[in-house]
Amino acid sequence: MGKDGMGSYTVGLDIGGTKILGALLDPAGEVVATVRRPTVHGADGLVTGAAEAVRDVVASGGVEVGVLAGVGLGIPGIVDHRSGTVRHAVNLGVHDDELPLAELLSEQLGGVPVVVENDLNVAAVGAAHVLERTAEPDGPGGDGDAGAHEDLAFLALGTGLASGLVLDGELRRGASGAAGEIGHIPVDPLGPECPCGQRGCLERFASGKALEAAWPARHGRPAPVELFEAARAGDQEAIEVRDRFADAVASAVRLLVLTTDVRHVVLGGGVAQLGAELLDVVQDALREQAKVSAFLGSLRLADRVRLAPTHVPVAAVGAAVLGRRG
Amino acid sequence: MGKDGMGSYTVGLDIGGTKILGALLDPAGEVVATVRRPTVHGADGLVTGAAEAVRDVVASGGVEVGVLAGVGLGIPGIVDHRSGTVRHAVNLGVHDDELPLAELLSEQLGGVPVVVENDLNVAAVGAAHVLERTAEPDGPGGDGDAGAHEDLAFLALGTGLASGLVLDGELRRGASGAAGEIGHIPVDPLGPECPCGQRGCLERFASGKALEAAWPARHGRPAPVELFEAARAGDQEAIEVRDRFADAVASAVRLLVLTTDVRHVVLGGGVAQLGAELLDVVQDALREQAKVSAFLGSLRLADRVRLAPTHVPVAAVGAAVLGRRG
Repeated sequence: MGKDGMGSYTVGLDIGGTKILGALLDPAGEVVATVRRPTVHGADGLVTGAAEAVRDVVASGGVEVGVLAGVGLGIPGIVDHRSGTVRHAVNLGVHDDELPLAELLSEQLGGVPVVVENDLNVAAVGAAHVLERTAEPDGPGGDGDAGAHEDLAFLALGTGLASGLVLDGELRRGASGAAGEIGHIPVDPLGPECPCGQRGCLERFASGKALEAAWPARHGRPAPVELFEAARAGDQEAIEVRDRFADAVASAVRLLVLTTDVRHVVLGGGVAQLGAELLDVVQDALREQAKVSAFLGSLRLADRVRLAPTHVPVAAVGAAVLGRRG
Repeated sequence: MGKDGMGSYTVGLDIGGTKILGALLDPAGEVVATVRRPTVHGADGLVTGAAEAVRDVVASGGVEVGVLAGVGLGIPGIVDHRSGTVRHAVNLGVHDDELPLAELLSEQLGGVPVVVENDLNVAAVGAAHVLERTAEPDGPGGDGDAGAHEDLAFLALGTGLASGLVLDGELRRGASGAAGEIGHIPVDPLGPECPCGQRGCLERFASGKALEAAWPARHGRPAPVELFEAARAGDQEAIEVRDRFADAVASAVRLLVLTTDVRHVVLGGGVAQLGAELLDVVQDALREQAKVSAFLGSLRLADRVRLAPTHVPVAAVGAAVLGRRG
């Protein structure tokens, strides 16, 4: 067994406001079992529910908690990965100033090491893990060495807009854990006010919330689905809203590449459930943006974009990968 | 002697359009000699001039070329650090499709390994090297371990706007060598056209060229000097131009931190020769921006900004550091 726990089973949990997704990784890094449970809100429910999710997924995989080298958790909210604590995870009903989640869960699991990370970081690590195992050595900037580390931004188009970064195979947290918070970069001095206090933040144009404001759901389905359907049916207004949204997402991709020059930008989050239809319009928008600029064209932005893997719970997988280092 | 050449002398050259700056690093990483020579344009002049600069600075330091573990070069233009070639370094009179600069210089120096890197990357590495040796363990996000690796963006306010990144002590080049090219991120849909083909690029607001367009030199001195002098003397228009410029530089700092969360942003390039006066207005602008947003405030942007060291030729030092890995 290596220093990083490679060679052991680990579990990762992606803990969201409504559900917990879990994954068991085997010693080779393959997903051998997954689990899905409703989230129980509040500190006690959270810890107990997480412990049960771990036991469930371990049992599904035919092993026992005792064999785990570690457990990783992905949580929305302010996470201190060094102390394993979570603050103000309001979505999860955690209002405590500081919940020592890693410590409490580890106790319930008989001392298995537990690490805690924010949800975008685990998603980025998970996407990198899955992409590395389905290597495409000929990506942009690819130098043909299939063993190269993954290098990507996971761009989460959820209610808000934010990203997680894996650079040269390493999770980039940054000096204050704010790496990837591109949603609050202003891109239009005359743009709408943002709840963050600034004006014209990228999130006001490229997020599920922005899309819903421009095209509220009228038929009880998710707003992105209704919008893309109307656009496909030829509704001019829908086409315009869709294309403006795609252009904004393309601007987020451009911003990520012009700053970090990541090899891949992986589209995830709720809006990305649109799948290929979203990928198409975002790639079209990137090609359109590149038409005016040879410099942008040389960066082959459209080729860098892909959809988050859907055959595995990618954030849970990332949490399990980080669990190896617990 | 370590694997990375630590323990040997190295030389770094910062080759610009008008001058070559050189630095000799001793085995402990200290700058023991520097040199400054005019740049001779064209491929032959460039190679011969660089070789002479190396011999000069080595002689000033009382050692010989034969003791060098490597030489590093920083060059404006498109550099392939793997092959040691340079393309279209128009500033240097190099119009060849591809000049094998590392190979040619190495031949003139009796086989000493030579590495080539772009000018922003060497500046970032140099700034990190100098800051690490004057450690301030209490910076934002600092965790008190003075031995921590440097983590910074070198923000070059030259004719254009671009940055070099050292993340967790490692130079970040990116998948296609475009990391840090933030000058061409659009930040105003109604902004002026940019020579790159886009509109409202950050460089159109936060660069020496942008400043000069807004406040052309009238008295034969550098435009930034004249602008800041007029502002200091109370000229209302100058104050406005200066503050708009400071706000644009602050926006560049914010963009870098919200993407990469670098611990420090180091202001360099021609405009940074203004020194403390520039730092003051940029920090004021950052504090002003943070007033509207508790989120921005929590990132302590103003505390992260500092001026590039001026007591050593920082880009040449960075080239010498990279020369260790030749």
